[in-house]
Amino acid sequence: MFFEKVAVVGVGLIGGSFGLALKAAKRCGRVVGVGRSAANLKLAMERGAIDAVEADVASAVRDADLVLISTPVAQIEGILGAMQKDLKPDALVTDAGSTKRDVVAAARKCLAGRLAQFVPAHPIAGAERSGAAAAAAELFRDKRVVLTPLVESGPAALEKAAAAWGACGARVSRMTPEEHDAVFAAVSHLPHLLAYALVSDIGARVDAARLFGYAAGGFRDFTRIASSDPEMWRDICVANSDQLLKELARFSTELEKIRALLESRDAGSLEKLFADARAARERWLNGEFR
Amino acid sequence: MFFEKVAVVGVGLIGGSFGLALKAAKRCGRVVGVGRSAANLKLAMERGAIDAVEADVASAVRDADLVLISTPVAQIEGILGAMQKDLKPDALVTDAGSTKRDVVAAARKCLAGRLAQFVPAHPIAGAERSGAAAAAAELFRDKRVVLTPLVESGPAALEKAAAAWGACGARVSRMTPEEHDAVFAAVSHLPHLLAYALVSDIGARVDAARLFGYAAGGFRDFTRIASSDPEMWRDICVANSDQLLKELARFSTELEKIRALLESRDAGSLEKLFADARAARERWLNGEFR
Repeated sequence: MFFEKVAVVGVGLIGGSFGLALKAAKRCGRVVGVGRSAANLKLAMERGAIDAVEADVASAVRDADLVLISTPVAQIEGILGAMQKDLKPDALVTDAGSTKRDVVAAARKCLAGRLAQFVPAHPIAGAERSGAAAAAAELFRDKRVVLTPLVESGPAALEKAAAAWGACGARVSRMTPEEHDAVFAAVSHLPHLLAYALVSDIGARVDAARLFGYAAGGFRDFTRIASSDPEMWRDICVANSDQLLKELARFSTELEKIRALLESRDAGSLEKLFADARAARERWLNGEFR
Repeated sequence: MFFEKVAVVGVGLIGGSFGLALKAAKRCGRVVGVGRSAANLKLAMERGAIDAVEADVASAVRDADLVLISTPVAQIEGILGAMQKDLKPDALVTDAGSTKRDVVAAARKCLAGRLAQFVPAHPIAGAERSGAAAAAAELFRDKRVVLTPLVESGPAALEKAAAAWGACGARVSRMTPEEHDAVFAAVSHLPHLLAYALVSDIGARVDAARLFGYAAGGFRDFTRIASSDPEMWRDICVANSDQLLKELARFSTELEKIRALLESRDAGSLEKLFADARAARERWLNGEFR
């Protein structure tokens, strides 16, 4: 599978890495990019993630064999609308959005008649760094990419999507958009919300400076994801608010359980809860759930 | 300042690293260790963290110039009681407990008449790894050690405590035990509880395997501290339950605020909260609160 022209809309961490990875794998001819920040696009050029900058989405996708939309999810609907008329009939369109029900709804609205060409995707390769500066050809190596095809997604497009993401080194799997949004609300969106909540609360206190002054390695790792891009996470929270609210309610119930254990100073139950969590995490680290 | 004989009670990550660090700094003669696990003490010997194993606390502290108690905090009272009669009159006793009001109370109960020799300490150098296997001479380098002296702690003991921890490479500072327990409830104990809560909740679900299967780098860092020693954290939670309950209530209020933003899909306020958190964390990472 070879893609002569690739168009990347949003050349940040994910889009830039996609260009670098396809080039490193020699699976594409030239890559063009389009985006909001001229400085970022220039950097993407200098780093070799893209070969040319296009002025708008329509020009970028013209003659493209593969189109990746890698922007915060709230922008995807507008971008699909902007490319709809100019897509080649056999071009694959994929995306890298962190939520999938909203992206599918956007496609149904804006890609009418071209849904066979679209295969939504979510590469699980986020980082708290963003922009083309953080892009790397190896970003997707051994990471998962979840495809959430529509019933309309054609077999040729599916094959291309699996080939393109696979060429980046990713482990490609499939879910429905609904399953995707439920799973990632639990293992990604909620943790981000909790990390943001903790740092926000501490940062707003009168003694914030002293508290931060004694925060150490555990705090650093726990809150790493609170350095993630606010716009991207705003969009995720809004797009997946129903599933995230479910997870938040569930987590609040868990905290209430722990509160009761603290209140009664129930050492045995606290230790068991901690030991069970550690054991589950060890099994995960040992690759038992890959 | 040179300590001819050092006794370490509990030769784990902290106690083992203390022995290695003092030796590397050439600030001690020999180090003896006492602990519950013969295998761990053997490993501590092999790694050079201690030079000899003593059968009990009383024998270990006899003739010692410096005694470190580095066990989970619930054991400290019994250990202080066991050493009380055998301490040299000018020996320094310090500890590495993660909570301090309980340790001070234990000292008042068990070190009557010897309180001048005791300087409670908390090295902020924990890790999710534990045991002598994880000990390292450089563990305390540039890390904080908080001393929480009693009014009875003598000037000679204070000078020795600052010298010993300083020789390990640590940045030594002071707080009251009350301040200490309030600060660490916020920046350490609560994050540990949240990480344990998340992993425990996910691990208990029927679809745990699938959820873990899609957990990635953000989840790994957020939950790293959920691999911490369950016994140690049980003791911390029980000893500091009042402050931890305050922090938990505060955090629940913050989550309730975020829940309302999600419910109303208030994109602007969510983005602001995330941006403020990221900005505060960047200032912290840049060393503004050191």
